[in-house]
Parts: sequence; structure tokens; C-alpha cells
Amino acid sequence: MRTLRLALGQINPTLGDLEGNSDKIIAMIGRARDLDADLVAFPEMAITGYPAEDLLYKESFIKDNLRAMERVMDASRDIAVAVGFVDADADTYNACAVGFQGELVDTYHKVHLPTYGVFDEDRYFKAGSTCPVYLINGVRVGINICEDIWYPAGPISVQRDLGAEVIVNINASPYHAGKSLARERMIATRAVDNSVFVAYLNTVGGQDELVFDGASMVFDQAGNLLARAPQFCEDLLVADLDADALFSSRLHDPRFRKDRPGNGSLSETSAGCTVQVSPVRERERRPLPKKDENCLLDSEAEVYGALVLGTRDYVQKSGFSKVLIGISGGIDSALTACVAVDALGKEKVVGVAMPSRYSSEGSVADAKVLACNLGIDLWEVPILPAHDVFLDMLKPHFGDLPENVAEENLQSRIRGNIIMSLSNKFGFLILTTGNKSEMAMGYATLYGDMVGGFAVLKDVPKTLGYDLARWRNANAVPGGAIPEAILVKPPSAELKPEQKDQDTLPPYDILDAVVKAYVEEDRSYQDMVDMGFDAQVVRQVIATVDRNEYKRRQAPPGVKITPRAFGKDRRLPIVNRYRQF
Amino acid sequence: MRTLRLALGQINPTLGDLEGNSDKIIAMIGRARDLDADLVAFPEMAITGYPAEDLLYKESFIKDNLRAMERVMDASRDIAVAVGFVDADADTYNACAVGFQGELVDTYHKVHLPTYGVFDEDRYFKAGSTCPVYLINGVRVGINICEDIWYPAGPISVQRDLGAEVIVNINASPYHAGKSLARERMIATRAVDNSVFVAYLNTVGGQDELVFDGASMVFDQAGNLLARAPQFCEDLLVADLDADALFSSRLHDPRFRKDRPGNGSLSETSAGCTVQVSPVRERERRPLPKKDENCLLDSEAEVYGALVLGTRDYVQKSGFSKVLIGISGGIDSALTACVAVDALGKEKVVGVAMPSRYSSEGSVADAKVLACNLGIDLWEVPILPAHDVFLDMLKPHFGDLPENVAEENLQSRIRGNIIMSLSNKFGFLILTTGNKSEMAMGYATLYGDMVGGFAVLKDVPKTLGYDLARWRNANAVPGGAIPEAILVKPPSAELKPEQKDQDTLPPYDILDAVVKAYVEEDRSYQDMVDMGFDAQVVRQVIATVDRNEYKRRQAPPGVKITPRAFGKDRRLPIVNRYRQF
Repeated sequence: MRTLRLALGQINPTLGDLEGNSDKIIAMIGRARDLDADLVAFPEMAITGYPAEDLLYKESFIKDNLRAMERVMDASRDIAVAVGFVDADADTYNACAVGFQGELVDTYHKVHLPTYGVFDEDRYFKAGSTCPVYLINGVRVGINICEDIWYPAGPISVQRDLGAEVIVNINASPYHAGKSLARERMIATRAVDNSVFVAYLNTVGGQDELVFDGASMVFDQAGNLLARAPQFCEDLLVADLDADALFSSRLHDPRFRKDRPGNGSLSETSAGCTVQVSPVRERERRPLPKKDENCLLDSEAEVYGALVLGTRDYVQKSGFSKVLIGISGGIDSALTACVAVDALGKEKVVGVAMPSRYSSEGSVADAKVLACNLGIDLWEVPILPAHDVFLDMLKPHFGDLPENVAEENLQSRIRGNIIMSLSNKFGFLILTTGNKSEMAMGYATLYGDMVGGFAVLKDVPKTLGYDLARWRNANAVPGGAIPEAILVKPPSAELKPEQKDQDTLPPYDILDAVVKAYVEEDRSYQDMVDMGFDAQVVRQVIATVDRNEYKRRQAPPGVKITPRAFGKDRRLPIVNRYRQF
Repeated sequence: MRTLRLALGQINPTLGDLEGNSDKIIAMIGRARDLDADLVAFPEMAITGYPAEDLLYKESFIKDNLRAMERVMDASRDIAVAVGFVDADADTYNACAVGFQGELVDTYHKVHLPTYGVFDEDRYFKAGSTCPVYLINGVRVGINICEDIWYPAGPISVQRDLGAEVIVNINASPYHAGKSLARERMIATRAVDNSVFVAYLNTVGGQDELVFDGASMVFDQAGNLLARAPQFCEDLLVADLDADALFSSRLHDPRFRKDRPGNGSLSETSAGCTVQVSPVRERERRPLPKKDENCLLDSEAEVYGALVLGTRDYVQKSGFSKVLIGISGGIDSALTACVAVDALGKEKVVGVAMPSRYSSEGSVADAKVLACNLGIDLWEVPILPAHDVFLDMLKPHFGDLPENVAEENLQSRIRGNIIMSLSNKFGFLILTTGNKSEMAMGYATLYGDMVGGFAVLKDVPKTLGYDLARWRNANAVPGGAIPEAILVKPPSAELKPEQKDQDTLPPYDILDAVVKAYVEEDRSYQDMVDMGFDAQVVRQVIATVDRNEYKRRQAPPGVKITPRAFGKDRRLPIVNRYRQF
């Protein structure tokens, strides 16, 4: 019986840590060998981490990556290994090395280079043009990379025509809510359309704005899910793929008639060839241990998981041990604190309350209850003395001018200074707490509450923040960390008496829907009015989002969880006179 | 006699101002018609401004740009018009519309799309594949766009083979020091290699980080410069191109033998065709008015001109009337104030002195002399009261911990708060004063002296800053604005007693050389040691530059003047564990 025991190494590499990543890969090769796997694959750019951005312009980086790849190939004893790395001749390629018995047997070059959204692959890579099929333990395996499999007529069809029975697609595919389902459908379709096993292997971990969610999966030729790895953590997913059964299933399939290539023949097309990687081994294999079926998480759990992993990896991979969070008694800082505790542990999280003359008693009390519930330290530095002295210092220049945003922002920036002073003194990283609705509307103080190294909720609309807070209250152990008062009071920046967000912003449920239409879907003014949104609200949102591009440019990175986040996912000019109305 | 009177409209469009840009183009078409020109050309993406970035994802933006293009075509009465715009069918193209008598006659699509440095054209555009030649007043004219002409075997060679006598290359080519000379050499070479007139038309103006420097030019087939427009301002450059003389010069040129295409025949290649645009007109033309020959500026004048234009356009195009600058008595703020005054006029510039307990008397006095020399207001807000109160407020948390960077940055952030409060109160834009050496090394306080909307010197290394200051003192009228004391005293942040930059940074002449090698040239550690730099200095620079990526991500934009600026020109991950030593 021709069977391929396939292992998928869903690892969490650290960007640029060539040695650490290789160590991790080599250790997992050992585990896969112990499980009698024929082939173990690792994600796209697993050696370097993804996206390496302009590190790819450094010759030393490319060379060091090649040496690391060779070290990984050295470890391919008695098991075929496929690993993502950067290949280079006169050009540079997003590549997969395939090796066996310590030798590099072949290198695949990614054919379809994404250059949209957060991707800039045309900036760095030359596209590959050949799509080989590898003979591994007598089974024909086509390997390709990420974007390649999104094209029905791409490498997978060449490899199918070359007789591929198994397709291994290695990825560094960033998360956004809902993407896992879209991927699953697409991969299942490819498997059915080409009558092949398809193994989708994704990396896992946070890198700056991106979270890779793992959730690697294997489908049979009928589109049935054979195995799935969990989301948001490392895993070694192993599956036995019965190539003889596949062969039989194709016998009566008109797509695999004898006169067509692909019916097990070794005919070659111009774009492909067949390469012997490892010989057929006759052996008894221990059956695979039974594993629980991994389901995709429900929607709040999934987004929350992305925030936790993105935050943990940003903090730990950049070498920080503890984080500071300004706790206002509002929903955003409460949710941010929960994510931080779940990501790092309560000992690693310190809250700072910085009440002003306009902070309600409720806010301060709510902050204390939250901190107590989460078991984190809460430091308190009231800002009143600094506020008074600044107003005095500025009086000669402000004169009798009416109060405006200057006096409001002053308080927020005093808080920024306090929390940065604590950060500089103790070496803790600041997590900033603003959400996507605020980022869109510039409803935040630059150098004030926007201060920090990482913005946990940057891509989380306000209304989703409430859902996540309620989900966390219901599902964490112990639950209910966020006091109900925080969940029910009207949102307020508390920078002037009786201030409420809704004094100047549209209601959040409407605002979030319009922001989604404008920012994530590029809807025009007229489109949005036709969708039924109030014309004046739409005009306010468009004008305000556009005007605040300068603020977002100076914002810290945060976890992308929607199809289009602020950051390198959305690149708008600051000077921009385009007006739709 | 077959002559083409060619007009190049070197205009300064505003990004997204489709109507304003079209008005400007239409007005200049009128001027060119009045000069009896046969063809007037406008820069790459003149209708929209460049780079339009993700505005190109908005359907409404594309449609409005098409309408604006049609309005420009309407104005092509008795003169052929070529104008850069965004074309769209199922795909989007960086395009040039060619029209006559109110009709769009043809559209050229850019063939070579730059996707490196500051450019992301593969993100937006599909590449063109045909390179027509246009018959305009009996002369064969090939039009292509920017990057197209950098390829010797690109569109220019197809157009030459189709008999083109004149090549009009329209650009939005960003400035960096030394680029104008490289362009001039390349264009002259293309003219000689293809025995054609080459007209290089560049846009002018600032857009976020970029400055387009104009300096459009026309070469004859022998590589002689026939005409050049000035740098950094709008111009209508007109030249008479004698096609008959060109024809004669080709008769004995073996490259234009009868049996080859290109010798005036209309043979077509697969990649090209010939299109009739405007008929031959028999007419008497007034001779062109004599213009002074425009020379390129010398090197300091050129960089200074770029800073002035970049600053003026950022401020004015984003709708501000006045700017605020923190004036410390140091070289960077002095130079920034000079640039601001030259860009906007002294009435539009306000200085703010914010002395601390560590500011020397000399610094405050120097700031006053500078302000007086420049004729700008200087407001004074000493920071001592706020500094004392913050230290009190933080005492319960700082306890007896030794002083560190926290106490230093506190002062800088008090200044940030003061200047932002003034900005919020009066609506002035803040120009921040940090230079490239500091940006590289993170020798600046985030949310402190980095506060501001635009960073004039962001890409100016410290040593070049001194050269520019001395150049301005010698060349402005009245000169000598920057007191000699500022030019000779050792640089200091004045955040603790007796502090000097050189206590912690390598000497600036060495630092700037290493930063150039590392940041602009991607030299490796070993390369730089082999170049003769001290190994310890090189290690310090590499580690410090890498570690401070997070700071630069939150910095305001500034004018790119080197081959590689911080910003979208250089895209490094924040979390980055790559180490060379």
C-alpha cells in the first residue's frame, strides 16, 4: 500500500532569529521522524520569519538564511524535509527547500507574489516558473507556497497534470476574522477540483501588526477534512494519506483518462518536472496516536485569541518582561488589561490610574475593582497638580481665549508623560488602549492616550470591543473580571465636565458600520448613502477619517483582525485634497 | 521644414485635487497655445498628483479622475495635449492621455512599474504592453512614462524602431541629492543611443515625504542639452525640435539603414503602432522668446531648495497658515527656522523657547538672536514649574531609584506638551527639528522633541545640517541669521548638567558615515569594518539603529533628500532578532 505519512510543523518563528528558528525546526524534524513520517513540512519563510521586509535587501541576511537552511537540510536523515526560506542567485525568491538524507534535493520558487494589502512581495522577489512534483516514498507530492494555491489554474494544476497525488501548500497567511472559513472552503474546492490530497500548512505567531493563526489542515480528494491543527499555538499535525486509494478513485474519473497527463504517468510539461526525493521504504509503522478533532473557535474566541497571541508575541519577541496600561475605568482599558493578563500572566501587567478633575468617582472605583478582579497591581498618579501648573504656565499665551481642545488634550498628554516616565524608569512596555473607531475618527490625543509601544485594540471597532468584553467575562476562569458598570456606562473621554463620546461622534453602532464601509470596503459617499446611512453622518465620517491620517501615522502598531487594518494594510497620503462632496 | 514646437508643463499638482490640478493644466495649455506649440505635455499622474497610494483603490476616485482627464482633453483645441492620469478598464494603469481638438486620440500605459524604494506601483497598476508613435504636425513622437526610459531596451527602442524622432518621457520622479546629474547623463545617453530628441518632463512640488524637483530638460540626438527648466518651481519649457535636421543626420547612420525599421518608415512591430494625432500645419511661427539658461543648483543650494519646497507644500497643501518651532539655541532648530522662514515668510513662523534648569544662558540668548535676525516672534515658556511638579508626583513610584533617562525625557515631554497645547490653541502646525543622525540612533525623545506634524531635517545628517546652515548664512539676504555661537558650540540635548551629544554618540562625522553605509547602502558589519570603521562604533550603530525602529515608526514625515530616507523608503520590521555579531 502506498501511503504518505505527512507531518506539518506549525511553528512560531521569530523574525530574523535564524538560529533560533532553525533549532526549533530541527527539533520538530526529530519529533516527526519519531512518528515515522515520510515528509515533514514547515511554513513559508520559516527560517527567517515573515514578513522580513527590507532585511531582504541585506546580503548578509540572505547568506545567513542560506546557511541556516543548509543546517536544516543536514537534519533530514531518514525523513524528507520541506522548509520555507529565501533563495538567491542573481535574484531573490520566496522559496521552499526540499531535502533528504542531508542533501538539498530541489528548491521550489513561489510563482504568485502577492502585492496588495499588507503584502509587498514584488518589492523583493522574482516569481518562480517551474512546478515540480516530488517522489517521496513512492507518492507524488507537489509543493507550492501560499498565494500559489489561490489560483485555480496556478501551480496546483501543473502539478496535478504531472501526476501529483498530494499537494503541500506552505503559508505565512495573516489572520483576519472570518478568513479561516474562506481558506477552508477554497482548499477543499482545490482538493476536489484536482482530485488530490491538499495539506495546508500555516505559520503561527505575532509579527508587528500581523498574527498568523495556524489552523493547518489536511483534506482528501473528496474535500473531506482529515485533520486540523489548533489556532494560535504551535503543533505537529500528522496524517496518513492513502495514495493507492486515491489512484483507484481516479480510475473512473474522466479527468484522469490515460491519454491525458496526470494519470500517474511521469510526462512532463514545460512548467514542471518530476524529482526523486526519497525511495519507497517497506516498513511497519506504528499507527498514529488518536488526537481530538480541532474545531475552529467561535467568532469572539477567535478574535480574542488573535489579540492575545499578537500581544504576547510583540511583548516577548521584543524582549520586554512587563507591560504598563493606563486604566481609566472605561471599556477599552479594561479589555486591554484582560488581553494582557491572558497573554502574559497577571504578574507581568501593571495598571496605572491617572484620574483628573473630570474623572468620575465611578471610573476610579471601577478601575480598582477591575485590577482587583484581574489580580494586577494598580498604581495611582492623580494628574491635578501638573494640570494646574501647565494652565498657569500657558496663561500668558492663552490669555482670555475660550477653552478648546487644547485644555482637553493637555490632560491626556500629562498622562502620556507620566506613563512614559514610569516606562522609562522601570523598562516596562506600554500597551495603549485605543480602538479602531477612535483611530478612524482621530478621537484620541496624539502623544496623550495614543502613547505606547503596542495598540492591542487598534483594529477592534468599539462595538466588537463590548462583545469581546462580555465574551471574556463569560468564558474566562475566573469570569466576570470586567465590572458590569464598565459595560453599561456611556463611553467618555472624561476630559471635560459631563463629556460623552456621543456628544461629538455618531452612535457607535452606526459609526462602526460606516467606518467598515469606508475604510475596509472603499465604499463611496454615494454608495453609503444608497446603503441607507444618513448622508450627514457619512460626510462626517469621510471627512474625519481623511483628516486624521496624520495622527494614525504616528500611532503604534496593533493586531490586524479585520480584512483591512490601519497600518501598512491601508496606505493613504497625508496631504490629500480628494473630496467626494 | 518639419519642426515640433514642444511645450513641457512643469506643474505642481496637489494630491487628490482633481479639479484644481485640471484648472492648472488647462490654464497652461492656453499659455502653450499662445506660444504656437504643437504639443504640450504634463507630468505623470498630473491629474491626480503622485503618489496617490490607496486612493487608487477607490472607484469614485478613478471615475472622478477620468472625468477630469476628459475636461483636459476638451481643452486640446489647436494643440495636441499629453497628460498623465489613471486609466481603468478591468485593470488600472499609470497612463498618459493624448488628445487633439477636444478628442482623446490614444492612451499610453506605463510598461515598467517601479516597486522598490518609495514606489509601490505593482500594488496598483497593470503594466502596459504597447508603445505607439504619434504623428504630431508631421513629426513622429513617442511618449512614455518615468521608469520606462531607464530601460535601454524598453519602450524607447520600440518607438525608435517605429520611426520616433522625439521621445517625450513624463515623470513624477522624486528628488534626492545627486539624482539630477544621474538623470541628465542617462537621458543624454538615451538620446544618442537612439538618435532621437528626448524631452524629460518632471513634476514639481512636495507630497508628504517626497519632493519632486522639476528640472525638466530637452536633449537633441547628439546628447546636447537644448533647454532646461529650473528646479523646485513651476515652469513652461518650450523648445523647437527640427525633425528634418534629425532625418538628415540619420541618413548616414548605419543604425537607420533603409532595410531596418525606424528609418522614417511606418512599419509596425507587435509592440507598437503609429497613430495620427494632429495634422501638419503650414504656418509662420513667432520665434520663441529667449530665456536664460537654467543651470542645476550647487549641492547645498539644491538640498536647501528641496527642504524649502517640501516644507512649504506640506504646510500649505495641508491647509495650515502658520508654523510653530521649538527653538533651543541649537543648530537643528536654527536651521529648521531658516527653512520655515524661506518657505513661508517670517510672519508665518513662531518660535517657542522652553528653557529648563539645564539650559545654558548661551542657548537662550542664541535663540533670541536667531529669532531677532529672522524677524520671527519668539514665545518663551520655561518648563521648570512643570518639571518640579512631575518629579513630586512621580516620587512615590520612583522612590530612591537612581536617575536615568526617565528624568531626562520628562523635560523633553513637558516641552512636547507645551508646544502641542499652543498648536491646539492657535491652530499652528508644529515643525519638528530632529535630524537623520538622531533619527537613526533614536537620540530623540518620543512624544518629546519628536512632537510635530512635519520633520524638516528628518533625512539631513547632522554634518550636512552644519553645511546647510553655513550656506544659508552666506547666501541668504540678509545673511548671517544663524549666530556663529550656534555653529561652533558642541551639540547638546541639555537634559542634564554638562551633557554633550558626544558623551554617548560617536563623533558626528564618523557616525554619519557609518549611518550612510548601514542605512542607505545596506553594508554588512564585516563590510563596514573592512571599509576601515572602528568595529565597536559599527556594532554600536547597527544595534542602536535596529533597536530604534519603533521610535521611527511614530515619527512625523519629513523631506527625503538622500537615496534612502527613513519612512516608506526603508521598511524594517520592529520585532527583529536578526543579529550580525
